[in-house]
Amino acid sequence: MSSQRIKIVGAGLIGTSLGLALSKQGIDVGLENRSKANLRLAIEYGAGNEASGEYEMVIVCVSPEMTAEVVAQQLEKHPEALVTDVASVKTEIAKEVARLTPGHSKRYLGSHPMAGREKGGPGSARADLFFARPWVITPSSETPEAAVELLKSLAMRLSALPIVMSAEEHDEAVALVSHLPQLVSSALAARLEPGNEQRLELAGQGLRDSSRIASSDPNLWLQILSQNAALVAPLLREFHSDIEKLVSSLENLDAPGSLAQLHNLLERGNSGVARIPGKHGGKFVDYQLLTVVIDDSPGSLASLLTFIGDVGVNLEDLKLEHSPGAQIGLVEIQVLPEVSQHLSDQLTQNGWRLV
Amino acid sequence: MSSQRIKIVGAGLIGTSLGLALSKQGIDVGLENRSKANLRLAIEYGAGNEASGEYEMVIVCVSPEMTAEVVAQQLEKHPEALVTDVASVKTEIAKEVARLTPGHSKRYLGSHPMAGREKGGPGSARADLFFARPWVITPSSETPEAAVELLKSLAMRLSALPIVMSAEEHDEAVALVSHLPQLVSSALAARLEPGNEQRLELAGQGLRDSSRIASSDPNLWLQILSQNAALVAPLLREFHSDIEKLVSSLENLDAPGSLAQLHNLLERGNSGVARIPGKHGGKFVDYQLLTVVIDDSPGSLASLLTFIGDVGVNLEDLKLEHSPGAQIGLVEIQVLPEVSQHLSDQLTQNGWRLV
Repeated sequence: MSSQRIKIVGAGLIGTSLGLALSKQGIDVGLENRSKANLRLAIEYGAGNEASGEYEMVIVCVSPEMTAEVVAQQLEKHPEALVTDVASVKTEIAKEVARLTPGHSKRYLGSHPMAGREKGGPGSARADLFFARPWVITPSSETPEAAVELLKSLAMRLSALPIVMSAEEHDEAVALVSHLPQLVSSALAARLEPGNEQRLELAGQGLRDSSRIASSDPNLWLQILSQNAALVAPLLREFHSDIEKLVSSLENLDAPGSLAQLHNLLERGNSGVARIPGKHGGKFVDYQLLTVVIDDSPGSLASLLTFIGDVGVNLEDLKLEHSPGAQIGLVEIQVLPEVSQHLSDQLTQNGWRLV
Repeated sequence: MSSQRIKIVGAGLIGTSLGLALSKQGIDVGLENRSKANLRLAIEYGAGNEASGEYEMVIVCVSPEMTAEVVAQQLEKHPEALVTDVASVKTEIAKEVARLTPGHSKRYLGSHPMAGREKGGPGSARADLFFARPWVITPSSETPEAAVELLKSLAMRLSALPIVMSAEEHDEAVALVSHLPQLVSSALAARLEPGNEQRLELAGQGLRDSSRIASSDPNLWLQILSQNAALVAPLLREFHSDIEKLVSSLENLDAPGSLAQLHNLLERGNSGVARIPGKHGGKFVDYQLLTVVIDDSPGSLASLLTFIGDVGVNLEDLKLEHSPGAQIGLVEIQVLPEVSQHLSDQLTQNGWRLV
């Protein structure tokens, strides 16, 4: 079972990408957008036609703060349609929808395709944006099972991975794994703003990784954080309390228990990071890390990887490391423990530099 | 000018790697180590011979908390030698050395080769460990210029990048770019410890990156943080105060100024991360990101990179993205803006899937 006529409201990155992906599946996509220029652009890209008439499903892809209102409008306008949205916070939107259209909220089913790009707008849209990404679906106790199945099958047609949980569970999960890290990373990077430039010359990969998401769009995040403040605040308060203990330990290093407190936090960090699922959704395997030196020129990484492929070894992870001041690249590769020695020997015997 | 006889005290990862690298340069390396088993292992690896007689230079490569004491012993034992060390905090060690051997401290010159691996011990040693890494040298006002030049030329012979600054400047820099991020990342990861497992299934690359260094060795970090507590504490207190404001904004979202405070922090995070020098030591170039889908099998990444090399495009950065639940890989590549469209067209026209 699948809808053959789907309307998308909002022709930004997510809406246009959805339009492209659904159109490729032969679905008749109707597009609606406040800005006529963006609407025309999305239509020219092949994301659908200008919306008119009735639809079996409406997907609202507007900004988080506009979502509930637009969902309510669409529920009124299309009295037979299942209406869903793509916003990254779910509970508040569901409540607001129920308040705005009490009679229709059974036909609203929240969802959150966890996909995005660094650039927004219809011009950045990609039909494959949802490929292999989680797509969270958040039914309420009133949602008919058929509606969940309809959305699940749609997600799967776009090669996304549907995950069903309640809106509250979703919001608690993203508060921990997305919203808290965003605030922590932003606050860490904010500390780099006043320092003198020379200090930053000693920055290594650790700082780069831990501050990377601090370059995210403040306006979008303000909306996300506003909608999930009630769940993010307690997590940030617990984090704040840990930081307070750390400051106190560092400021009173000779006081009894200070070192134990520092050590305890570092150990809890070890345990916490070990709980993050690894590649392929499994637990972290203890991959072996090999670092290979290559010239920083076209083709040199390719010839390394061709060599590794010829040896028959599959890479579990790979990262090009920044090398300030040097026109060389350090390639960090992770492989399964059982092939590490073999690969290391083969590389060395064939003239590759391991560091 | 360069020393032809160098003694290394401590045959761990750094000491053994230094021994291997210096021996390769034809230098007569004498090794000393408390554990006789590790000493024999380092000698068998080719990192040098058992130390005996006089040396022109002594490099102390023991744990941070043992460094000052061992430096003082070596200054007494080798009255003509320049003694240096490799610990990652410099001021406290220099003070302690001056206190322990007031008559000899002109011959002590601190340094910090910023190199390491995830695994320690002589068995992980690599002659190329220092290749293209900053090697900070921290003279005092008493240090003879010739001593600085001697250590600089040694660093350069190992292909490291010598950077001269005072011990205080070094410790302030690493407090900001290394010790603060370590504590923040550990405290963030510590928040993952109590949560239920299902929440972590929604973890994306942002959480993975921002918590990666939380897997570092607590015992080593306890020593580093203890020695630099006076400089790390004020930075962590400022961070703590930013987090306090964030918590207060989130808990009182409707109070005047709350949203402005949230927005301000997110914007400061943008500015801070933009100050981190990019690859090749320069400022960040606004690289274009392309994401390509590959099969998760040996050789598929290689054939992608061979193709990119054939097209004549140089990768600025490359990352394999984790794809929970899917046997495919997403390869994120960054290229200069001027070649991005060309590469994108070439990839698409030749059957590669861009997402």
